Amino acid sequence: MIKYGKKEERKAIDLSHHLSELSKARPVSPLKGLARYLGKPGLVMLAGGMPSPEYFPFHELSAEVLVPNSFPIEAPALTSAPAETSWFWRLFGGNAQKEVQTTHISVAKYPADRLTVNLATALQYGTAQGLPALQAVWREFVGKVYKPAYDDWTVLADTGNTDGWSRCAVTLMNRGDGFLTEEWTYPSALAAARPFGIRSVPVAMDGNGMRPDALRKVLSEWNVEERGGMKRPHVMYTVPVGQNPSGANMPASRKKEIYDICVEYDVIICEDDPYYFQQVGEYIPKDRRSAPAASESVEDPARYIETLVPSYLQFDYQGRVIRMDTFSKTMAPGSRLGWFTTSPILAERLERQGETTTQSPCGFGQSLITQLLLSWKYDGYVRWLQGISGQYKMRRDLFIDALADEFDLQITPRLAVGVWEGCDVLVASEKIQGGEMSEKKVFGRKQFFSFVPPAAGMFVWLKLHFDGHRDLVAGKETEESLEMKLWEEIAEAGVLFSPGWFFSADHEHDDTNARGEGHFRIAFSSASADDMKKAARTFRRVLDRFFA
Amino acid sequence: MIKYGKKEERKAIDLSHHLSELSKARPVSPLKGLARYLGKPGLVMLAGGMPSPEYFPFHELSAEVLVPNSFPIEAPALTSAPAETSWFWRLFGGNAQKEVQTTHISVAKYPADRLTVNLATALQYGTAQGLPALQAVWREFVGKVYKPAYDDWTVLADTGNTDGWSRCAVTLMNRGDGFLTEEWTYPSALAAARPFGIRSVPVAMDGNGMRPDALRKVLSEWNVEERGGMKRPHVMYTVPVGQNPSGANMPASRKKEIYDICVEYDVIICEDDPYYFQQVGEYIPKDRRSAPAASESVEDPARYIETLVPSYLQFDYQGRVIRMDTFSKTMAPGSRLGWFTTSPILAERLERQGETTTQSPCGFGQSLITQLLLSWKYDGYVRWLQGISGQYKMRRDLFIDALADEFDLQITPRLAVGVWEGCDVLVASEKIQGGEMSEKKVFGRKQFFSFVPPAAGMFVWLKLHFDGHRDLVAGKETEESLEMKLWEEIAEAGVLFSPGWFFSADHEHDDTNARGEGHFRIAFSSASADDMKKAARTFRRVLDRFFA
Repeated sequence: MIKYGKKEERKAIDLSHHLSELSKARPVSPLKGLARYLGKPGLVMLAGGMPSPEYFPFHELSAEVLVPNSFPIEAPALTSAPAETSWFWRLFGGNAQKEVQTTHISVAKYPADRLTVNLATALQYGTAQGLPALQAVWREFVGKVYKPAYDDWTVLADTGNTDGWSRCAVTLMNRGDGFLTEEWTYPSALAAARPFGIRSVPVAMDGNGMRPDALRKVLSEWNVEERGGMKRPHVMYTVPVGQNPSGANMPASRKKEIYDICVEYDVIICEDDPYYFQQVGEYIPKDRRSAPAASESVEDPARYIETLVPSYLQFDYQGRVIRMDTFSKTMAPGSRLGWFTTSPILAERLERQGETTTQSPCGFGQSLITQLLLSWKYDGYVRWLQGISGQYKMRRDLFIDALADEFDLQITPRLAVGVWEGCDVLVASEKIQGGEMSEKKVFGRKQFFSFVPPAAGMFVWLKLHFDGHRDLVAGKETEESLEMKLWEEIAEAGVLFSPGWFFSADHEHDDTNARGEGHFRIAFSSASADDMKKAARTFRRVLDRFFA
Repeated sequence: MIKYGKKEERKAIDLSHHLSELSKARPVSPLKGLARYLGKPGLVMLAGGMPSPEYFPFHELSAEVLVPNSFPIEAPALTSAPAETSWFWRLFGGNAQKEVQTTHISVAKYPADRLTVNLATALQYGTAQGLPALQAVWREFVGKVYKPAYDDWTVLADTGNTDGWSRCAVTLMNRGDGFLTEEWTYPSALAAARPFGIRSVPVAMDGNGMRPDALRKVLSEWNVEERGGMKRPHVMYTVPVGQNPSGANMPASRKKEIYDICVEYDVIICEDDPYYFQQVGEYIPKDRRSAPAASESVEDPARYIETLVPSYLQFDYQGRVIRMDTFSKTMAPGSRLGWFTTSPILAERLERQGETTTQSPCGFGQSLITQLLLSWKYDGYVRWLQGISGQYKMRRDLFIDALADEFDLQITPRLAVGVWEGCDVLVASEKIQGGEMSEKKVFGRKQFFSFVPPAAGMFVWLKLHFDGHRDLVAGKETEESLEMKLWEEIAEAGVLFSPGWFFSADHEHDDTNARGEGHFRIAFSSASADDMKKAARTFRRVLDRFFA
């Protein structure tokens, strides 16, 4: 082991043995030799094919931007349906004419102070690292929010987490390699790696996300022959917060446990964390919900950050985490802007990987977002994130409330096993109309589906109870074919869910569709409250018919 | 051969046998199954993880943009140095305070007309194809300017031509494959392909670019064994206009000839054409330059377009060209936005290739640029391009004039061979100060370098005349080591050129640096007139010492 001096004892270790052949074959840019002259005062630069900024037709950009406290810290508890005329419904109905409070920001081509964000620089060729002013914002943010456990971490721009993971995959893995991931996962993560001959290795989950015991079992019992020649994986892809599609939010203790296993087996953790600021706490049924305590609405950025489950970075004393942040969920997906936080060695190779594709993220997006963040400042941005979080809590509650209006939702302890161990599982049964329930009625009712209300993210992940379906019993259909049949009937009725098989990390290995489980993923992130109610009603109507 | 009906007789042929294994392994997005429901009226969409546009902090973007005729069609002919106070010098000196004429454009989140460009859509997740309004602009532009010779061509967004070529390379080639390219070429094109085990196959050039006879020789005499197992290339990467670094501008007749060879040998042409609107005509020495005829300044978009050498698309009756356009040189590099024009089959695979990295280009850039183009309209944009072209003509002239002030530039027919066959080659010799030249003086002077004034693009490509250098004669240095020595001395003196070896398509095959030619590439695209003069003076001073 390398012994570090006192001053440097928290430096990242050298993990360059994880680099792929492709990444090692990426030449250092020949422009590097030019770099040492670039700071020279009075240098006449005739090397690069850069147009003069005079020829950028954009003289000044400006934007009307929402104020950081546009959304309340705690959205109003919905104990009853609000009156149609309230600000809340106008907002939530997506009414475009709603009054919003905005401030003005602008980015000039040639501001008086050349060090501020300016179009002459932002719209010129830039490095793949991102604008210096934006890097500074990220450094402050990462230091205060994620608190990496080593000192020489670095930040690096990308064009969002799909680009981020795609660059991780080819930088770290060769054809034939596999990466560890949750058994249900983000389909684009699979699609990005697959053409390079890089496959997923599913690890079992429960209601808190990936299971450490399952991870250790996969790694310790790895058998190259049984795995068709695949080497033991040295890379993990994980969405630990608001996991896509399951909505699981991994607690700190489990992250620590998984991190330690990754140290033991020398695994790089690629932490894809778009939903970090959508940690919304547990679902409380409408009839038991109370207005938030006044103390919960105090604006205190540090205290809010304390309420969030820590990132893997906080446990990362070696620099083996590649954390991916994105503005897609906190600002807008169209910003196509995000960043890595990782060790200098890995960051350098990820930067090279970006140089020959996007080169650098779009300067319009970079400059406008940087100017917004400089205008809001750290505290303002955290306040904004807190407001967004309140909105997602409200949306999650609204959607589950809508299900509760159509189905009888009961906590059912006997289902809290396997994937949902340790969680309150809600089972949705046929609602008995009129009169009190007799025991007989309760017993005889059809249980349609079950789910764990997500504590983070954008999705409700439903397990469909096809077990008593006549066509399954008769052997005419599998659970998966029933999933698609039901999905189509719901789509024909005007409501679009995502079929569960999209998210199976196993699916790509197995074209026989034999996984045999029926699931839907339902996004509550953008539909209006009315549409949520309509969706729940439609879902119920189709289910009634489907199981008739 | 497929027989097409009359209506469809100009359809692209099926060239899918060119697709790489990687590209064929890219799954069609599972979301495709959802697509047929998307148009359904009243559909409730709960499938995608899209945030509500309410949570985009950008309520409205606006920009002050230059008017299309900001720059004259023909920049003033510089027969003498203009007075320091003229608008021209203020502009060209990069004076930030210069008055410019601008108009206002804006993009609202929720405009009254939902079909116009809006942030609710542009900042949402979008397709890799680009905003529909932008695609419509591209279709009009491609149809009117490039006039493809088949009907079912399609346009597709990318994040600039580096991304474009990078996607072409992995979509069309497997490890071990090679692509045909000019013997001197764009280094990033090599760097993008190399890590995938894809190498360049240099083809000899002359002053008009790639030579058809050399291309035919390479293809017809291809010997897999002699080429180390490499199959005959089926892909070409070429910069036909303002070739980087040579500045060559390929005439129409030669494009036709090369296209026909590519049909014969079934080669896909990747036409990287960032400098298409910097076709600036031949260089006329200062003392012979006259003011442009009044007729040359008439604003007539169609006539201007007629003066440009046609794109390969105009000869492409089969759909074997993948043309790459970018806004980097016509608007701003930081826009990171460009587009492919190619056949539907190739476009579909190039789109998939982009989906798992950038997904779609940045919505800030897409919406602002679309709004600008809608505001300018086709004629306005062509007028803008014409103005930019005039500026580059002026810059090219200014830089060569600056060289002429420091060196004696003479057309030397004996050098018009090989690379420069068919061109007026200027040789730069020591300038004799004072008195008339005697024949003896002319004969005894040192010839420092030679070049062909470029008729397009941003670069002057110099061949250095090291042949009489004492260290070369003494065998202490090679031409290439002298190139780097001279380059460093000029850099130390405060002027940065690009060393020629960056651009060698051979270089990557040969780490012994044995190519043995000295070149510099000099960009005249952004330096001020004063800096150009300073650079020429410095160059002369260093050369005097270097050859002393």
